Amino acid sequence: MNNNSNSQKVPLNKTIRHSVIFSFKAGMSDQDKRHFFDAVSKLTAIEGVRTFEILKQTSVKNKYEFGISMEFQNNEAYQYYNNHPDHVAFVQNIWLKQVEDFLEIDYESL
Amino acid sequence: MNNNSNSQKVPLNKTIRHSVIFSFKAGMSDQDKRHFFDAVSKLTAIEGVRTFEILKQTSVKNKYEFGISMEFQNNEAYQYYNNHPDHVAFVQNIWLKQVEDFLEIDYESL
Repeated sequence: MNNNSNSQKVPLNKTIRHSVIFSFKAGMSDQDKRHFFDAVSKLTAIEGVRTFEILKQTSVKNKYEFGISMEFQNNEAYQYYNNHPDHVAFVQNIWLKQVEDFLEIDYESL
Repeated sequence: MNNNSNSQKVPLNKTIRHSVIFSFKAGMSDQDKRHFFDAVSKLTAIEGVRTFEILKQTSVKNKYEFGISMEFQNNEAYQYYNNHPDHVAFVQNIWLKQVEDFLEIDYESL
């Protein structure tokens, strides 16, 4: 009934906040990391990706150095991203070659 | 120079998004979990806690069932929360007794 055109105001109970914390393989130079993050940034162009952030992971209580966080309006948008050729190519050609270890986290409203 | 009174618009490079993913010990009833989340909710009263959320963790790629997420304007606010008697009492009296396993994650701008 509320025809709100502000795309940020999606129903809270639909939104999925997807994030991944990760560490690079040994031997990645600063330039390698810049190229990696440039490639990560291009994933924002995939339809449905919202609130995209590249972050430092600073808790000393886990072993991961960085994080990537984004939101999807619903699971359909999330799966569209997951299966998108640009995302699949990024995972195959860059992520798997340069990332040592990672953990994925998906948050939804309780 | 920008005297913005909207407390949500803190400088991005200061904000810490603290979250913890966790699973309950076996044998927690639905009522036990409601009481747990009621106690968690009271932590929002601690000064400096922002954007507090209790969440489901829905990725099948990790073993955790729930999440709690909040933001602090800076590390001082984070440490004020961490050391606050209400938080310390919650951890000792409820968290450690009812939570089986957890992982803390802190995100800051890159």
